[in-house]
Amino acid sequence: MMNHISINPERLWSRIQEMARIGATPGGGVCRLALSEEDRQGRDLFVQWCRQAGCVVQVDVLGNIFARREGARPELPAVLLGSHLDSQPTGGKYDGAYGVLAALEVAETLNDHKISTEAAIEIVSWTNEEGARFTPAMLASGAYSGVFTEEFVLGQRDQDGISFEQALNAIGYRGEKLLGADRYKAALEVHIEQGPVLEAEQLPIGVVTGVQGIKWYDLRIQGKEAHAGPTPMSFRQDPVRSLIKVLELAYGLAERYAPDAKVTIGQIQAGPGVRNTVPGHLELTLDIRHPDSLILDQMDGQLKTELEELAGNSHTVMAIKEVWHSPPVNFDQRCICAVSRAAEKLGLPSKKMVSGAGHDSVYLARVMPVGMIFIPCRDGLSHNELEHIEVEHATAGANVLLHAALELAGGEDLKGI
Amino acid sequence: MMNHISINPERLWSRIQEMARIGATPGGGVCRLALSEEDRQGRDLFVQWCRQAGCVVQVDVLGNIFARREGARPELPAVLLGSHLDSQPTGGKYDGAYGVLAALEVAETLNDHKISTEAAIEIVSWTNEEGARFTPAMLASGAYSGVFTEEFVLGQRDQDGISFEQALNAIGYRGEKLLGADRYKAALEVHIEQGPVLEAEQLPIGVVTGVQGIKWYDLRIQGKEAHAGPTPMSFRQDPVRSLIKVLELAYGLAERYAPDAKVTIGQIQAGPGVRNTVPGHLELTLDIRHPDSLILDQMDGQLKTELEELAGNSHTVMAIKEVWHSPPVNFDQRCICAVSRAAEKLGLPSKKMVSGAGHDSVYLARVMPVGMIFIPCRDGLSHNELEHIEVEHATAGANVLLHAALELAGGEDLKGI
Repeated sequence: MMNHISINPERLWSRIQEMARIGATPGGGVCRLALSEEDRQGRDLFVQWCRQAGCVVQVDVLGNIFARREGARPELPAVLLGSHLDSQPTGGKYDGAYGVLAALEVAETLNDHKISTEAAIEIVSWTNEEGARFTPAMLASGAYSGVFTEEFVLGQRDQDGISFEQALNAIGYRGEKLLGADRYKAALEVHIEQGPVLEAEQLPIGVVTGVQGIKWYDLRIQGKEAHAGPTPMSFRQDPVRSLIKVLELAYGLAERYAPDAKVTIGQIQAGPGVRNTVPGHLELTLDIRHPDSLILDQMDGQLKTELEELAGNSHTVMAIKEVWHSPPVNFDQRCICAVSRAAEKLGLPSKKMVSGAGHDSVYLARVMPVGMIFIPCRDGLSHNELEHIEVEHATAGANVLLHAALELAGGEDLKGI
Repeated sequence: MMNHISINPERLWSRIQEMARIGATPGGGVCRLALSEEDRQGRDLFVQWCRQAGCVVQVDVLGNIFARREGARPELPAVLLGSHLDSQPTGGKYDGAYGVLAALEVAETLNDHKISTEAAIEIVSWTNEEGARFTPAMLASGAYSGVFTEEFVLGQRDQDGISFEQALNAIGYRGEKLLGADRYKAALEVHIEQGPVLEAEQLPIGVVTGVQGIKWYDLRIQGKEAHAGPTPMSFRQDPVRSLIKVLELAYGLAERYAPDAKVTIGQIQAGPGVRNTVPGHLELTLDIRHPDSLILDQMDGQLKTELEELAGNSHTVMAIKEVWHSPPVNFDQRCICAVSRAAEKLGLPSKKMVSGAGHDSVYLARVMPVGMIFIPCRDGLSHNELEHIEVEHATAGANVLLHAALELAGGEDLKGI
């Protein structure tokens, strides 16, 4: 293996921990809600570090922060690296912050080695990724990518009735306008996996090829409410009995399209939900996912057909309603290859995988070539104060980001070594 | 068929309707909560009718009303007929009131035909059968039968903090003491079925042989909470998936002991119950019933054994806890036969059946021989403003009550015909 330049693990780790002190919770996590005082402090620290690293900082009208390390050819579109600094109310230290600080670490490392990339590199921190204070999630990257209007975002209100705009003005992070996506040739984001796969397979790097498609349904099984005592079994139209077949159908769908298909029944509600009454109806939620839009459509079709057959052979009535659809996103092949090659070059075992959760990169992929890198997190835990990563994985992820960015921005990784 | 004496259908029906005007609801039902002003009015009307029928009225310390039609041999223990006058908040016209007024109609009919029974006949109205205002249900018949103490009953409080004792004093229906069960040789109660069987089988009379035993369980399936997005199916410990086998087990138990066994899962709760999260656990209630205590015990044993086997082959942990047990009650053979013979004598098709719901008679059966008569109600509907019975069934039930009472009290049913 050749001797490639590496980021500085101590600097990266100590900055992650220093950032985590802002909004630190007694449980060892972080509460740094979007556009809060803690978010302001986190932004100030980040901006200060960026300036110390020689970057030029710009803030757009939604508070997204862009820090530019100029390239040899400023006229070329830049490579964008970053994630978000806001957290869940009882979030962890690494979700988002790691990706922003790893991007900053790339710039620092290029400085350390006096490497000039052809295209500029910009570090970004997106506002309100979590959706914990203002809904929906990924609000500012969504607006940046044309999914929401600027007015919509500015007008969203938190639980106390404070608007995004008021909160943004209050922390002094409102710029003048949105900056165009055409300023970039590609974007990369490194993030904790928020799932258990890399840890279980003992892989330091996940090469993210896209985001799985999601369909959400509301399902209702309508039977007939009856007293548990006087109603013989043969007289009942019991939706709980029908539930057996519905669950078999749903999990059967997951098996048919294993291992990539996912089927989740997160909520089951019996009405009236009384111990000694046969429920009149059941309501359940169904979440099906697949990275391939063709297969997701097939699953959808089979689900509806088989439910109809089931209802025909049952004493209960079934109704299914699609309530949300998020099509699969395929990341850019060039970005995926750059990440993959960087991992290989560094001797880091990796696997291609799809992201289960949403990220700013998902919206960004609508307006520019995008790639993502995952690193393992303990027990797949996230949105939790116990969220944890290892230094070696943080280092590995940042190094893959560095080398993939070098490939995309056109730089030399061996200069001076 | 011989010409047997009959109750007066018009008198019975018009009294039922007159009683239903007290506490009448806009939806066509009745709200006559125990010891309320409406209950007082209902009691006053009932007592007035009893006195007009020549009965002597006694009230015990819990407000239970006993109206005695003296027999030829006053020293003999009496035959007790009756039910309750209180209702659910949105109850029907017939649950309880029908049984009380049918008992009164028996006395009226005996008067009409100048029949003197050997043993006295007493009409009873029990306080707070429904359990809607003061819990638990069948409070006063329970105390009468030694299940609750007098102090316990008097101290129970409604939602507004008013005690049973205060409410009882306020309506002026507090007597001095409980009257002993040894005053009676047997008790009969006629009641609407509150189930669908008689209507479906087009039978006017159910000869109730007892009350099924009930066991209530809380069941918990413990899995592991996980994000619906990033967690592959093979990594999940999904309690909803285990639910399939648990439901198969429960309904299998009902099939094994069909047609008398009943299994009801009234409540299913997923925790945390979020659409895009694999639930960490499920909680369900299980209600199993059987009229035979031996079989109920077998069901209990098999349920626990099979759940244990299931848990051994599952990624989830199962816990089952028995939270209530009400053993089956077998009514008295002489009372059952008296009811059965009365129906046969009157040419009324009947079937033997067990009661699914609780009644004052269930507690009474602990201290005296007891029998019950069911009549059909529309759609098995009860505890509902739409509760409905037919005049012909009300008449049939009261006639069976009359003739069974005559047999038990020792009287002539052909006198004067």
